[in-house]
Amino acid sequence: MSRKIKTPLLGGELKLNFRKYHIPAAKVAILCLDGFAHEYLDLALAKEKMPHLKRMIARGYYTSARAAMPTYTNVNNVSIITGVAPDAHGICGNYFYDAKKNKEVMMNSAEYMRYSNILAAVAGMNRKVAVVTAKEKLKDLLSAGLNGIAFSIEKGYRTYEWRLPSLYKLTGMKAASIYSAEASLQVVRAGTRLLEHDYADFVYLSLTDYIQHTYPPDHPAALDFCAKLDREIGGLVKTGAIIGATADHGMNAKHLADGKPNILYLEQMLTRRFGKGFRVILPITDPYVKHHGALGSFATVYVPATASVREIMAWALEQEGITEVYDRQTAAKKLELPDDRIGDVTVLSARNVVLGRSPRYHDLTQLEAPLRSHGGRYEEMVPFIVSKPMNKEYRQRGFMDLRNFDIFDFTLNGLWEWAD
Amino acid sequence: MSRKIKTPLLGGELKLNFRKYHIPAAKVAILCLDGFAHEYLDLALAKEKMPHLKRMIARGYYTSARAAMPTYTNVNNVSIITGVAPDAHGICGNYFYDAKKNKEVMMNSAEYMRYSNILAAVAGMNRKVAVVTAKEKLKDLLSAGLNGIAFSIEKGYRTYEWRLPSLYKLTGMKAASIYSAEASLQVVRAGTRLLEHDYADFVYLSLTDYIQHTYPPDHPAALDFCAKLDREIGGLVKTGAIIGATADHGMNAKHLADGKPNILYLEQMLTRRFGKGFRVILPITDPYVKHHGALGSFATVYVPATASVREIMAWALEQEGITEVYDRQTAAKKLELPDDRIGDVTVLSARNVVLGRSPRYHDLTQLEAPLRSHGGRYEEMVPFIVSKPMNKEYRQRGFMDLRNFDIFDFTLNGLWEWAD
Repeated sequence: MSRKIKTPLLGGELKLNFRKYHIPAAKVAILCLDGFAHEYLDLALAKEKMPHLKRMIARGYYTSARAAMPTYTNVNNVSIITGVAPDAHGICGNYFYDAKKNKEVMMNSAEYMRYSNILAAVAGMNRKVAVVTAKEKLKDLLSAGLNGIAFSIEKGYRTYEWRLPSLYKLTGMKAASIYSAEASLQVVRAGTRLLEHDYADFVYLSLTDYIQHTYPPDHPAALDFCAKLDREIGGLVKTGAIIGATADHGMNAKHLADGKPNILYLEQMLTRRFGKGFRVILPITDPYVKHHGALGSFATVYVPATASVREIMAWALEQEGITEVYDRQTAAKKLELPDDRIGDVTVLSARNVVLGRSPRYHDLTQLEAPLRSHGGRYEEMVPFIVSKPMNKEYRQRGFMDLRNFDIFDFTLNGLWEWAD
Repeated sequence: MSRKIKTPLLGGELKLNFRKYHIPAAKVAILCLDGFAHEYLDLALAKEKMPHLKRMIARGYYTSARAAMPTYTNVNNVSIITGVAPDAHGICGNYFYDAKKNKEVMMNSAEYMRYSNILAAVAGMNRKVAVVTAKEKLKDLLSAGLNGIAFSIEKGYRTYEWRLPSLYKLTGMKAASIYSAEASLQVVRAGTRLLEHDYADFVYLSLTDYIQHTYPPDHPAALDFCAKLDREIGGLVKTGAIIGATADHGMNAKHLADGKPNILYLEQMLTRRFGKGFRVILPITDPYVKHHGALGSFATVYVPATASVREIMAWALEQEGITEVYDRQTAAKKLELPDDRIGDVTVLSARNVVLGRSPRYHDLTQLEAPLRSHGGRYEEMVPFIVSKPMNKEYRQRGFMDLRNFDIFDFTLNGLWEWAD
């Protein structure tokens, strides 16, 4: 990787994935605030917990954007760094059924990505690009093809691979557990230090939603996290970087009054009603079980040849708590999913309902708090913030069903000060 | 009507529509902030335009609630004052096809309501209840069975009917046009004065969304409206009333890049494809055409006997911009609609798309700005604010798919200071 280029930073034009990007001669930081639902922002603003983010919203640009379905982390991070929906880039979950190999596998590897990484292309323009993630699972996807720095807080000791100081030396923070608020704070701190010390001039920072999975927006721990995150954002602002920030998905409570998760065990229900042979894939499935127990509001179903897809669909839509049911082609079209990586039927559940396979598949003892999760329609809308005002064209575009994966476009191309 | 009762106010218990309400011995004001989408609130908070509402959020209770479908004004105001969904109370739009009478009619009359009005019941407990609305169309519905004050700003001269001073004398504001920010401000001011001068001690105040239809959240006129609305809310706070506030629906831009409305003329499309005899009902239809031109993201279709409902549904779901399609029974169940007041097929459109009948049915020249409207899935989530903190039970309930029509329940029953 090249670290020879000194100031002034090189700008230029990039064409990628049917979009054009203006690469400014300025530092750039794009943040994915994992699980940062509107409710967290609203309360933090009202309670004066996020003065730096507040100033960014007040002086820059702010709106709501729509995430990609299913509303999961990998899906949306890859949408953000490619600028396209999952039907194009191919990553439609953390986990899927590889029909060719007849195996259920994680989708964490860049080999599954079908579109190019904006970050890799920017690095190809002699910019010093760095990707910092909380979770290791994301690092591979986000650094696909990248000639630049990429590490996770989870495996933070690996900074030596990039001839960087240790994470502790870089950030002044001890290695954070992936199940902590600090993991996210350290992502932003590390990104800030990389920019400050000229290790990088174009960073993508992807946080973790551990806090949002664990605490509702008005919980003191959530507000405390917002306050600390804001301090880190304040540090990032000081680097002079142009900042774009959005979220991969929202977050909702998915539990009953007694605090138990509100689950429909879909595979079990299907088997009881229609017999054996159903395979229910929960694309939220990942190694971070304390967050969500592999329970989200989205499932895709492989129907055995002995059963009728139409009949299954009609039955599914009748179930209390199931809100949307699509066949493969309709799911591909309406939910923008790659049709070769989803089942015969795709199912979404209500704002407070998650879908499971069967009780023995989910270790609920791992959950540390009443379940909060995502994946469905009600975690689709997220904040969208740029540190500078948009020009007229982009302000107009911002109203037209803006997507969270427009954040590179808006941050790189839309600034008012660059308008003709 | 009784105005004889002086302080102290009478409290009591009310059982209505399968809920229990604690009527506190305190003044109460419930606000329906018409079309007050999260984006308006967020920007107003960040830009310090709403200090009183901000304080209410910070010191009281705040979350997001789900509105009733279709996300229209009458539907949701009636849900709020009955505490039930439209499948129970029967008001599923401003406008519907009365199959018995074979006529398309407005649904503005209380004769269409199937559940009881909380406000009327509270008045029956010797409380002085007042309803103030911006639009006259709502007044009849909201004052169903009410022995108390009810007037609209639109026909504000009628305050004499309640032996009240003129609206000008009461509020110090000239009669506002229904197409103005002032109409909403005057609603809150009138409610405040009624409480101050002891004409009422329990008020329901329903604003108009003219500003949200006309200006996006970051427009100076929208921010100015927020600031002025907040000043009125400040006045309301001074009365000492316990305040609950929510919205009937959100608001999204529904136009193309050139500013023209993004319309699917559904009746025309159906007629061209399947022949004559289709009746497309747009429940947004009302006399206030400058707001929306009768264009929203929800339609219900009466299919002629010559056509197949299944075929129509499959075709509709294939159309770009149509996001959800349900048969009558499924729409009744999943969207909580009265099955005798909807068509054979119910159709929802995308965040930036509205449904029309045919071009000649809509007078687009009446639109004053690029179309912003509501009615669909993407206008479902709204702010939910109570001026005091909730007790543990209600705080917990607030996470469990809270509805905007829980606002009476939360404001009357949920206060922390009344907890055992």
